[in-house]
Amino acid sequence: MAKGLSWTKIADAIGKDRVWTVAALLGQHPLSADDASTVAALLDLDDDAVAALQLTPYRGSAESASADPTIYRFHEALSLYGPAVKELIAEEFGDGIMSAINFRMSVQRRPDPQGDRVIVTFDGKFLDYTWNNTEQEVMS
Amino acid sequence: MAKGLSWTKIADAIGKDRVWTVAALLGQHPLSADDASTVAALLDLDDDAVAALQLTPYRGSAESASADPTIYRFHEALSLYGPAVKELIAEEFGDGIMSAINFRMSVQRRPDPQGDRVIVTFDGKFLDYTWNNTEQEVMS
Amino acid sequence: MAKGLSWTKIADAIGKDRVWTVAALLGQHPLSADDASTVAALLDLDDDAVAALQLTPYRGSAESASADPTIYRFHEALSLYGPAVKELIAEEFGDGIMSAINFRMSVQRRPDPQGDRVIVTFDGKFLDYTWNNTEQEVMS
Amino acid sequence: MAKGLSWTKIADAIGKDRVWTVAALLGQHPLSADDASTVAALLDLDDDAVAALQLTPYRGSAESASADPTIYRFHEALSLYGPAVKELIAEEFGDGIMSAINFRMSVQRRPDPQGDRVIVTFDGKFLDYTWNNTEQEVMS
Amino acid sequence: MAKGLSWTKIADAIGKDRVWTVAALLGQHPLSADDASTVAALLDLDDDAVAALQLTPYRGSAESASADPTIYRFHEALSLYGPAVKELIAEEFGDGIMSAINFRMSVQRRPDPQGDRVIVTFDGKFLDYTWNNTEQEVMS
Amino acid sequence: MAKGLSWTKIADAIGKDRVWTVAALLGQHPLSADDASTVAALLDLDDDAVAALQLTPYRGSAESASADPTIYRFHEALSLYGPAVKELIAEEFGDGIMSAINFRMSVQRRPDPQGDRVIVTFDGKFLDYTWNNTEQEVMS
Amino acid sequence: MAKGLSWTKIADAIGKDRVWTVAALLGQHPLSADDASTVAALLDLDDDAVAALQLTPYRGSAESASADPTIYRFHEALSLYGPAVKELIAEEFGDGIMSAINFRMSVQRRPDPQGDRVIVTFDGKFLDYTWNNTEQEVMS
Amino acid sequence: MAKGLSWTKIADAIGKDRVWTVAALLGQHPLSADDASTVAALLDLDDDAVAALQLTPYRGSAESASADPTIYRFHEALSLYGPAVKELIAEEFGDGIMSAINFRMSVQRRPDPQGDRVIVTFDGKFLDYTWNNTEQEVMS
Amino acid sequence: MAKGLSWTKIADAIGKDRVWTVAALLGQHPLSADDASTVAALLDLDDDAVAALQLTPYRGSAESASADPTIYRFHEALSLYGPAVKELIAEEFGDGIMSAINFRMSVQRRPDPQGDRVIVTFDGKFLDYTWNNTEQEVMS
Amino acid sequence: MAKGLSWTKIADAIGKDRVWTVAALLGQHPLSADDASTVAALLDLDDDAVAALQLTPYRGSAESASADPTIYRFHEALSLYGPAVKELIAEEFGDGIMSAINFRMSVQRRPDPQGDRVIVTFDGKFLDYTWNNTEQEVMS
Repeated sequence: MAKGLSWTKIADAIGKDRVWTVAALLGQHPLSADDASTVAALLDLDDDAVAALQLTPYRGSAESASADPTIYRFHEALSLYGPAVKELIAEEFGDGIMSAINFRMSVQRRPDPQGDRVIVTFDGKFLDYTWNNTEQEVMS
Repeated sequence: MAKGLSWTKIADAIGKDRVWTVAALLGQHPLSADDASTVAALLDLDDDAVAALQLTPYRGSAESASADPTIYRFHEALSLYGPAVKELIAEEFGDGIMSAINFRMSVQRRPDPQGDRVIVTFDGKFLDYTWNNTEQEVMS
Repeated sequence: MAKGLSWTKIADAIGKDRVWTVAALLGQHPLSADDASTVAALLDLDDDAVAALQLTPYRGSAESASADPTIYRFHEALSLYGPAVKELIAEEFGDGIMSAINFRMSVQRRPDPQGDRVIVTFDGKFLDYTWNNTEQEVMS
Repeated sequence: MAKGLSWTKIADAIGKDRVWTVAALLGQHPLSADDASTVAALLDLDDDAVAALQLTPYRGSAESASADPTIYRFHEALSLYGPAVKELIAEEFGDGIMSAINFRMSVQRRPDPQGDRVIVTFDGKFLDYTWNNTEQEVMS
Repeated sequence: MAKGLSWTKIADAIGKDRVWTVAALLGQHPLSADDASTVAALLDLDDDAVAALQLTPYRGSAESASADPTIYRFHEALSLYGPAVKELIAEEFGDGIMSAINFRMSVQRRPDPQGDRVIVTFDGKFLDYTWNNTEQEVMS
Repeated sequence: MAKGLSWTKIADAIGKDRVWTVAALLGQHPLSADDASTVAALLDLDDDAVAALQLTPYRGSAESASADPTIYRFHEALSLYGPAVKELIAEEFGDGIMSAINFRMSVQRRPDPQGDRVIVTFDGKFLDYTWNNTEQEVMS
Repeated sequence: MAKGLSWTKIADAIGKDRVWTVAALLGQHPLSADDASTVAALLDLDDDAVAALQLTPYRGSAESASADPTIYRFHEALSLYGPAVKELIAEEFGDGIMSAINFRMSVQRRPDPQGDRVIVTFDGKFLDYTWNNTEQEVMS
Repeated sequence: MAKGLSWTKIADAIGKDRVWTVAALLGQHPLSADDASTVAALLDLDDDAVAALQLTPYRGSAESASADPTIYRFHEALSLYGPAVKELIAEEFGDGIMSAINFRMSVQRRPDPQGDRVIVTFDGKFLDYTWNNTEQEVMS
Repeated sequence: MAKGLSWTKIADAIGKDRVWTVAALLGQHPLSADDASTVAALLDLDDDAVAALQLTPYRGSAESASADPTIYRFHEALSLYGPAVKELIAEEFGDGIMSAINFRMSVQRRPDPQGDRVIVTFDGKFLDYTWNNTEQEVMS
Repeated sequence: MAKGLSWTKIADAIGKDRVWTVAALLGQHPLSADDASTVAALLDLDDDAVAALQLTPYRGSAESASADPTIYRFHEALSLYGPAVKELIAEEFGDGIMSAINFRMSVQRRPDPQGDRVIVTFDGKFLDYTWNNTEQEVMS
């Protein structure tokens, strides 16, 4: 897809984060009309593609993608460390979750003489499980 | 489990990272004999437990754990952004993976006036897919 | 479990919503120390049970529970109407979700001469997919 | 699909509820001949499409749709609160179910200063499990 | 379980249909207090069992039961004839279902010189998919 | 498919039961050459279709069909009452099964002032598990 | 289980085929009262076991058993040759099946200079799919 | 496929067993160049088909084929008798398996006044689990 | 399990390969009476354990074991290279398989200045798919 | 695919190992531009194919491939011996894994008078689970 053009250049062209931009072009987020036009100009896409890039998608990648070794390693890490992460969120924040909607993610490279490292950060707002039980009141 | 004692205090007692320590106590890593004794003293465990903490485990949490909402949000994020992360690793590093073995992970809190944020970092050595095809030579 | 005592009476005793209370006693939410004591007094539970009621649980009911016809009808309704609900949320609110964390739920009876009706309401805060792409700024 | 036209306008044009209308156009309910013609005029559909809209469908959305985060949150809520809902239906109505056939559903927006809320209501006739065991009699 | 006693005798003792009675004793329906006492007297059950027989159960048999050849033949028949049954219900009654709640079932033997036959009847009220779309009105 | 023509008329035209006829046209049974020609004349099918209707099929409907609510109710009834049916077959006939091959099935409507009823009958020859263990003899 | 005693000796003691006898003792068939007593005498079983051997079982072995290599080879052979067997049954007998109820099976050894061979025979009555469509008549 | 021509005639034309021939034509075995030409002449196949028949296939039929009743009965028989067959192979031959590679299979008809019988024979070389543990020696 | 004692010492004590010995003690192979006694003496096992070690097991490890990262890497390698291995076996040997019964396996360490390597060898007899189609002859 | 040309010749032409080359051509590894051109010349591929051969693929073969008997035998061997391999890696190297990225694999033939043998070698760098817990330091 991105021959000649890198994902980074496309992200720069529309002024969005790289992870967000790649995910959007892989069908996980709708683009605004302007961004869709910008991308279409870069990639020589026709009007149908411009319209398609703006639709709210049914999200989620195919189950089979999680067998790809690069993606699988993240699932494996969750299988080992997911419950530990849950315990530490509870200890630090109380009973709740990291939002996956009010959320951002980044991929970075950290130079290291023994082999550079891949640093992937999940960054989401903490949401607690407080249930507002007064029916008359407004909940937040 | 950790009434009175926090996970953080246990981790400090053995001088290890918090994620590693919680994961180890949840059965994902063996403790050294010294660390097992330290933990046993903190938690009033008997000798059998001390021995059990030192065994190499069969790793991986139960499938059902991934339905817990706190853990599920990480799987959901991978379902949306996993292929994007793969593309960006390929663009930045070339064809390969983030190691889940030469790996560390952290959970942090970032204050934010609109709601504090959960920051979870995956940090693993990049491993490329270079296959050494000279049979006589040593591979690295 | 609730012989003599109804779920409604237990919920009233701790001043919480009925759905929340039943879910908590079925292991989906931790009780506060006070509420756990109140419930224990009502149900003649011992100290271990009081402590257990206060733990942060691994949430989610067994897969087999969804085969029970009373519960299955809700899954069936989602199978038919879930995509329609998604479309209408997008039309009314924009691209995002109903939070299942900042959330409450109720079960009510509406009298009807042709057979009373079960009214179940899902009530969650709308969360949109806006991703803050300025790395220097704080996200909300 | 509904560029220029909103789901709400289509529902108004045929005088049906919005959830029902969207579900029908997504293949979950047959339209009457009149409604199919009205929709076809709005959307510029041909005669084959008009006929297709009137067929009794095989209902149920694809399994993969339940992985979309907007839809998944409803499944998650059922996973946590489904058994509680069952208990409260039994306490309030006796042993039985909420019908998913004699049923309606709505999606509404409730303004809230701390963030507007999505209100989704499931509304079905209560059906009890009374089994008429007199073979000579007519059952109801 | 039913040594000396047949299922038929137990059903007669409580004045219920045989299928209902066996299903209830296999954990699919609650018994009334009176019926539970009658059954307990016949089967020498203690008070805990009497109480257990009166609880509203989580219904549905184990998945593995459907591999038993006697039960499997019914699943096989549905696999071949289920869509045909759906078509004929639609042709005869319109768009809807046979209720599995307002429902009864029987097992009978029909003598036949070439081998007696098993006759199993499913008998449920027809429920149609009519959705009442006038919000002010009461639905039936 | 059967616009203008009902399934009942097609079944009458070839002198077969309705369930059998619909199942055959949905690909579960081969038609004889004569019946295939009769059906082809009614439905304006070409010679390839006539030949296709006569092939011995790989039987069984798609797994997804069992999620359709009209078909699911039969699976739900089996989930609740299947083991009871097995027990009553054993009590009445001895150890064996209802054949799904030497088998017929019908769908009927029974008028009822409280709502007409769907009556579906499974009718198969009883086959017992007697294993003839004399190697020299002929088995039946 | 059968230390000192072979399966063959047990089968001889009750005068049944070996496959049937082993299957029965593994819980797939009920024994007659006489045979259960004979087996109990051979194996030193108590009265509860004698009663248990006479119950009609829920048949079918655990799914995991089919991963055992000795059993898996039969599944593999069916995966390769099952459709061919179906075609040849249709060619030789017409449209129908081999009964698995009116059925027997044997395991034999055939000496062979290049390695003795395992010969397993499936032997069941052919049942055809003829559906008797005259409602007044008796079916066979 | 085999209109006018029977599977038996095709098998005779290439001088191979019937089960092998049908399996090969259904994509489970490669044909030799001569046999592929002979079959192509009989069935009027073009050169591409002749080449395709000679390729080493990825073996195994679709999972859905095992739901066809004719094929399912063999799986059911294995579910009931597979463990018994394993026990008898162990008793007769020792610890090992029947090969599914050095293997042949046949389908035959045995006349029987009470209904002809389908006789399917699995015939494979016994392979034992002897592991040669002398590293210097050649294993057999 | 093997505190003080290594797997290698146990294997040496009974004169068997290490992989075979560990697999046998993990329940995948029966031990001879002599070897079982030797192992029992080393590990202080009682007579029941000695008998249990000699039984023919139902083989195959739990599905969950394949999620352990050390074991998963072998499954991942097969997912990437399995079809390539099949192609090269076909090119080198013809149409057939590597036996997993007439088979041995080893684990070795190869020193390497850039990190020692794990060398795991699968070594099985080639079995070809030749089907002997002369019914009168003996097959090999 | 490789008519006239063997996999070995293609591998020689690009100077890569045979397993790597076949896997790459089956879509598991990207080729360099030069190698892609060389292969295209050998196989008469067009420019699109040359470009496609250079893309970083989503790795992993279809689940169904593991049912092919030649590939299945490797899965079966892992099912029996995988835990033993894990134990021996732990005993020899400590707690860690064999890398499947810094990895190579070979298929070889070993002549044997009792039938030639297939020798498949997995050769990967050992990676240990050492987690560097000093946040200031560089990890290796």
